[in-house]
Amino acid sequence: MKLEAKGRTYNAGQGIKTKTYTYKNSQKLFQRALKVIPCGIPGHFSPAPLVPPTMYPFYADRAKGSRFWDVDGNEFIDYMCAYGPMVLGYNHPKVELAAEAQRKKGDCMMGPSIVMIELAEYLTGCIQGADWAFFAKNGGDVTNLAVMIARAATGRKKIVMVKGGYHGVAPWMQGYGHYGVIEEDIANIVAIEWNNVKQFEDAIAANPDAIAGFIATPYHHPNFVDSEFPAPDYWKRIRELCTKHGIVLIIDDVRCGFRLDMKGSAAYFGFTPDLACYCKAIANGYPISALVGIEALKTVAAKVFYTGSYWYQSVPMAAALATLKELKRINGPALMNKIGKKLFDGMVKICASYGFDLKVTGAYSMPYVRIANDPSNMLHQEWCAECTARGAYFTSHHNWFVSAAHTEKDIQKTWNIVDDVCKLLKKKYGDKY
Amino acid sequence: MKLEAKGRTYNAGQGIKTKTYTYKNSQKLFQRALKVIPCGIPGHFSPAPLVPPTMYPFYADRAKGSRFWDVDGNEFIDYMCAYGPMVLGYNHPKVELAAEAQRKKGDCMMGPSIVMIELAEYLTGCIQGADWAFFAKNGGDVTNLAVMIARAATGRKKIVMVKGGYHGVAPWMQGYGHYGVIEEDIANIVAIEWNNVKQFEDAIAANPDAIAGFIATPYHHPNFVDSEFPAPDYWKRIRELCTKHGIVLIIDDVRCGFRLDMKGSAAYFGFTPDLACYCKAIANGYPISALVGIEALKTVAAKVFYTGSYWYQSVPMAAALATLKELKRINGPALMNKIGKKLFDGMVKICASYGFDLKVTGAYSMPYVRIANDPSNMLHQEWCAECTARGAYFTSHHNWFVSAAHTEKDIQKTWNIVDDVCKLLKKKYGDKY
Repeated sequence: MKLEAKGRTYNAGQGIKTKTYTYKNSQKLFQRALKVIPCGIPGHFSPAPLVPPTMYPFYADRAKGSRFWDVDGNEFIDYMCAYGPMVLGYNHPKVELAAEAQRKKGDCMMGPSIVMIELAEYLTGCIQGADWAFFAKNGGDVTNLAVMIARAATGRKKIVMVKGGYHGVAPWMQGYGHYGVIEEDIANIVAIEWNNVKQFEDAIAANPDAIAGFIATPYHHPNFVDSEFPAPDYWKRIRELCTKHGIVLIIDDVRCGFRLDMKGSAAYFGFTPDLACYCKAIANGYPISALVGIEALKTVAAKVFYTGSYWYQSVPMAAALATLKELKRINGPALMNKIGKKLFDGMVKICASYGFDLKVTGAYSMPYVRIANDPSNMLHQEWCAECTARGAYFTSHHNWFVSAAHTEKDIQKTWNIVDDVCKLLKKKYGDKY
Repeated sequence: MKLEAKGRTYNAGQGIKTKTYTYKNSQKLFQRALKVIPCGIPGHFSPAPLVPPTMYPFYADRAKGSRFWDVDGNEFIDYMCAYGPMVLGYNHPKVELAAEAQRKKGDCMMGPSIVMIELAEYLTGCIQGADWAFFAKNGGDVTNLAVMIARAATGRKKIVMVKGGYHGVAPWMQGYGHYGVIEEDIANIVAIEWNNVKQFEDAIAANPDAIAGFIATPYHHPNFVDSEFPAPDYWKRIRELCTKHGIVLIIDDVRCGFRLDMKGSAAYFGFTPDLACYCKAIANGYPISALVGIEALKTVAAKVFYTGSYWYQSVPMAAALATLKELKRINGPALMNKIGKKLFDGMVKICASYGFDLKVTGAYSMPYVRIANDPSNMLHQEWCAECTARGAYFTSHHNWFVSAAHTEKDIQKTWNIVDDVCKLLKKKYGDKY
């Protein structure tokens, strides 16, 4: 690992072995970007929620396996996995081989190629309850389509969602008060609390024969707060209520999909949805998303007009096939959870030895990780930033991601960094926390 | 060109030199696809509008330059260019080289790479009135974002659009009555006729201080009917009205962009919009779209939260840079219009010599082409299908696309096919048309 010579110096003489990175090029490029791109880096890669942003890299230069290098030459073990898409490791040989073979024939062509059928066959064979598949580019493409199908199938308007759930950037999802969202966009959205069956029953009673669909993630993984698994019987009761009242049950498996179970995260929690949305881990970074559904919704799905210029690209479909086959071969979800368990169990112990309470919630393959000593999150943010600036890329406000490419060496190095940062913060704050 | 041995035989002995293709594999694959994909091929590649569908290929196997080969080994000169994205020719060496160089470093990584800034700088330097750029995947991603920005900037709700205009598959665009669209989706959409300034004035009068934006294509290119250029002074007057009433002028240049003018199609027609949407030709088939806008809207654009899992992919950005530079170097828009003019002038003459009135409207680089003898379009559909089944891929309901890769040889071969098909239809129908 290349260590910057000009790291900050306040660590000196404290027994800290790791030096901190500097980000001169990232900062310079960001200033340049601000001139021609709104807020420099928009969307989920925006430095805005990174605290302090000067301790994070903004621009990636290259990536390989579990690591990426920023534009200052700093090397990071990537615990965000490009916010999810990287699942087998950057530039995975099998995925790249499949993509390259298809690319030589053609990618965006005048029509889909046979690989679209093969991928649909693979997904319907793999995901529990999936009788058909539809492909798009983004997770939001398929959550929006799911909502349209639910409305078309039921002739109803209302969509029940869970507060804090994220299903893309469409106005209906963002909620009123966000820039560019108007009242009519959310007029038919009913938001309830996670794990609250009673509120779902109340919503049904308050909107008789008016609820088209219920959309939720398989477990609750909002930003800024801990993840929450479903309570026992939660999904059984939600499934029963949906079936009883003719409500389309939509699972947004965009973030979690193929990181819990190859059969889909709903199968992991013991139920079968009517529609399920996939993206992120499906093709190891190649741009594709999928909606899968039950036979009873296939005809109405065919009637909703939904398309995009690049949605029939063959290369991402070939990459998806190769990714899914490899994930199945290595039992990727189990492997990622095993790697994650080892990593985070160790981190919890290290933190505890310095008096820091590291709370790990959600699946080990995509946990929400937080230093819980300080409810203001200031300590947690500082801890994440110090670890990142030493080569373990942690964000403080979003669940992390583990990939099948994270190695024993990555784990050991991460533990060393965590140990150093805990030591540093203990020296700095003493018994304050 | 490989000719199928088992072409239909009714052409025999009519002096027709070309044989028709058969599509056994396409048909078989389509039946297989129907089992696992709603309507087999959804969206704009659906065979539904192709008449008769049995005379069209459904699946592409490979593509190179101006041509593609279907799964039956049939070769086609592609006059749909994958419905627009192909602009320099499939598998263009310069674009592929740039993409490959970036791919080796990284594509979907933990952060954008410097190429995002370079592309934004290139676009703002290239497109008239563009002070900033935002990147997404699909044309619809950026038309939707434009609408959100217009609403956020003005604090108003109404969007005026042109009847028959297509701006993606979002419910607000599709209109009520389409599957999955509810009343609230279109409650704030005001649809007016193309080229009708009076109706825009009336809409403004009927919705005082309530219109956030006006969205339209630079010229009118709807499906199933002829294209229409703007009337003299149309855009001048629309621009004046938008400025006067604080309405954001949004140009959807998704289809037309870089096929009329490298400065943007608005510049071609002599005006500057506030926001303009690009996709299709921007990266020769690599998946990327762009919204560009004026300085006054940059801050509000930064406030609208809008993102997608793969929107920061570096490879499509590198491909876009290479595509745009090459288009500029060869003056692509002028070249495509020159190729198109020669091709279609020749086709009009050939058709006329058989008594068929071939009407060509819109830009020569993406014209709407129609045999106008028969208002029912039955003759036109048959003519398109017969030409396609001989290797010149024509659709009967959508504008075509010309690329910079279409050659003199393509033109000559297309003329031969058109001549044969006109001869065939003349023999079949005599003086009926």
